[in-house]
Amino acid sequence: MNPLRLLVPAALLLVLGTRPAWALSFQEGVHSDSVRFLFVLAVMLAAGKLSAEIFERFGQPAVVGELIAGVILGGSLLGVIPVSPDDPLTEIIALLAEIGVLVLLFEIGLETDLKQMFRVGPAAGSVAAVGVVMPFMLGVVFWLSFAPDDFNIVSSSTTAIFIGATLTATSVGITARVLTDIKVMSSLEAKLIIGAAVIDDVLGLVLLGLVATLAVGAAVGVWDVAWAFAVAVGFLVVAVAVGFAVAPRLFGLIDRMQVRGVLLVAAFVFLLLIAALADRVGSAMIIGAFAAGIILSRTNQFDLIEDRIKPVADIFTPIFFLSIGAQLDVRLLNPFAEGNGQVLALAAALFGIAVVGKLAAGWAVPWRRFNRLGVGIGMIPRGEVGLIFANIGLTTGVLGDELFSAVVLMVIGTTFVAPPLLKWSFGRWGTASVPVD
Amino acid sequence: MNPLRLLVPAALLLVLGTRPAWALSFQEGVHSDSVRFLFVLAVMLAAGKLSAEIFERFGQPAVVGELIAGVILGGSLLGVIPVSPDDPLTEIIALLAEIGVLVLLFEIGLETDLKQMFRVGPAAGSVAAVGVVMPFMLGVVFWLSFAPDDFNIVSSSTTAIFIGATLTATSVGITARVLTDIKVMSSLEAKLIIGAAVIDDVLGLVLLGLVATLAVGAAVGVWDVAWAFAVAVGFLVVAVAVGFAVAPRLFGLIDRMQVRGVLLVAAFVFLLLIAALADRVGSAMIIGAFAAGIILSRTNQFDLIEDRIKPVADIFTPIFFLSIGAQLDVRLLNPFAEGNGQVLALAAALFGIAVVGKLAAGWAVPWRRFNRLGVGIGMIPRGEVGLIFANIGLTTGVLGDELFSAVVLMVIGTTFVAPPLLKWSFGRWGTASVPVD
Repeated sequence: MNPLRLLVPAALLLVLGTRPAWALSFQEGVHSDSVRFLFVLAVMLAAGKLSAEIFERFGQPAVVGELIAGVILGGSLLGVIPVSPDDPLTEIIALLAEIGVLVLLFEIGLETDLKQMFRVGPAAGSVAAVGVVMPFMLGVVFWLSFAPDDFNIVSSSTTAIFIGATLTATSVGITARVLTDIKVMSSLEAKLIIGAAVIDDVLGLVLLGLVATLAVGAAVGVWDVAWAFAVAVGFLVVAVAVGFAVAPRLFGLIDRMQVRGVLLVAAFVFLLLIAALADRVGSAMIIGAFAAGIILSRTNQFDLIEDRIKPVADIFTPIFFLSIGAQLDVRLLNPFAEGNGQVLALAAALFGIAVVGKLAAGWAVPWRRFNRLGVGIGMIPRGEVGLIFANIGLTTGVLGDELFSAVVLMVIGTTFVAPPLLKWSFGRWGTASVPVD
Repeated sequence: MNPLRLLVPAALLLVLGTRPAWALSFQEGVHSDSVRFLFVLAVMLAAGKLSAEIFERFGQPAVVGELIAGVILGGSLLGVIPVSPDDPLTEIIALLAEIGVLVLLFEIGLETDLKQMFRVGPAAGSVAAVGVVMPFMLGVVFWLSFAPDDFNIVSSSTTAIFIGATLTATSVGITARVLTDIKVMSSLEAKLIIGAAVIDDVLGLVLLGLVATLAVGAAVGVWDVAWAFAVAVGFLVVAVAVGFAVAPRLFGLIDRMQVRGVLLVAAFVFLLLIAALADRVGSAMIIGAFAAGIILSRTNQFDLIEDRIKPVADIFTPIFFLSIGAQLDVRLLNPFAEGNGQVLALAAALFGIAVVGKLAAGWAVPWRRFNRLGVGIGMIPRGEVGLIFANIGLTTGVLGDELFSAVVLMVIGTTFVAPPLLKWSFGRWGTASVPVD
């Protein structure tokens, strides 16, 4: 070994320890944010991959590793991932996380065979309906029956509906990632889960609109419900129909362009625009991203797009999962701290309802044979959708601080418990032996 | 054609025009920033690629297309790209642009053969030295001789040194992109230009430190100059030396990891950390990114890293070039508006000095034969480095508003003029027939 190589680490340490005075006094203001940004991004990605690798080695889904890396780097422990609204980096990381979940849904859309989806449509609809109605009703009944008197809330019935609503969402992101990790993405069960989760997102949007209107004290008419539902469903149908007609020709033109990277950039732009459009018409960005993927799966450049979007997803998607983990305030897990006992008990009750309500969805399709428990488990994680609900509840005052904490714990609990259970369930009972077609 | 396809665009228009009331009232606050972010990003990338394609079709370098797309989308025309410090998206786009230039320099580093660089080292050093000394001296002499009396400035000699300093920087990003676009990146001329530009960045940092210290009224000693220089040069040498020793083993370990995308993420994290480290020790982030690329070009996974980083570069790099274009206030180009005449005259004078001073660098290596004019032109663009200088001058009060505008015009002028001139020069006189080795 070259002896010079032993000297350089020492020299590096020396240089690292000393920083020129002018750099300190002058660069702090100009560059401090961007250097910290690079550092935060680097640490998030490195810790996420390392933790994912460790979990995979121990036979657990990689996504749980990323969530736990997020918890450790999060606001309540190491504080590397910015979560405070006062921190200028918080919004930046949140926007990158948003791109992460959009690219993830886009990838899922790319791999979705729409014909197969239609074939499982009624079954997925049934799973979705049970998975929305059961947790919602259980949540409302629970709150109206057992609500602690000393919680600081606006109105008991509004809060009950709100809690019901937070229990209905299904996070397609987490489940899709786990199903991919354990390589059952092409099974009937996976199609049922993904189909039902997308339907749940549509239903969740309708509920979100209603609940948000209730939260500000306005009345909700039947027409509002119908309209919100029509927009959410209509967007997906219209976008895919128009997309199928337009996209192949559009991407045929793009294929004749010569500048470097034009196909990837076109696909990425398409994804961003459809997602933004979805939001503008009152649907959800993730539904737009999913639709964009489905549309581009019909173009001739499908294979190339899938190959090129992968590195982009590898950079952005972990940011999303780490950000979810970072939301958890681990101090809430200490049962001996003042007030935590009640919060934890409430969280446990909500968690029980959340799990039982979604497991029931697995038995919603009696006319077909498949791994019912696996499908039920696949519907459990609430993920980001649940956190969005909780956040609205907090800002409108429908949920007090304690109830907000309990809902967040429930959401994160369901997110953490689903991946190992899914892996266990599919490992033990496998997937339907009947092919999907 | 399916008649349904004619109905869907009409339905889409209908849906687009109407947005549910609850979505308007409630989602605006929660989502408005993220939807606008997706939209801005999509428009920037789409306009950049389209404009790049048009310029390539007309035989011009693609990067000029991206710059012009930036001008059109910029603050003074369409206002799509945020430039105001009050806009929350301004910092986010700036940070993504920063990642863009870092990934660009990383790619250049990956493709750099260090042995060849060492072989052209003395020649590149000579080019760099002339390219720094000539514009600096011309700038100082010009300002001390012809400074208009009515410009609102702190001290004439400090301002003179500052103006000299803004004229010295070389933007390796623009030139490297053009040299790649016109496919002469492996020529002796390209190695001279890139080598000299990197040395210029190192020298520029030293100057930046001195000038910033002068700007706040402090004295600068010989020791400060020597130290700043040692840090800037030392970082590059130490980082590459340590990297060559450590990186192959580190990436050997990473190669044994199994999670998806681990190699790309590891390379990206490596790039971010070395760039952040470079800044922390008083060097420049782009030098760190360049060093990271050189280091990883020695690993076994080099080909795979290069292939996977490309899509990431395709997304981030255009954001950098569009952001530079967006800085130009086109209203300054109207010679009939109040005060613009003097600013334009000053900008023209600075532009002349900037071009002549750098062209001279092409004749700095009399002992070798090559396309001297091409090398001189390659040194012309000031790009982001010049804009950083100008910005510091404005915030410290060393440059007044008019002088700042003139410097910005000079910087953007050099950036715009270099690509077509480079293309013309290499098209007319070609590259050195002698191989580099």
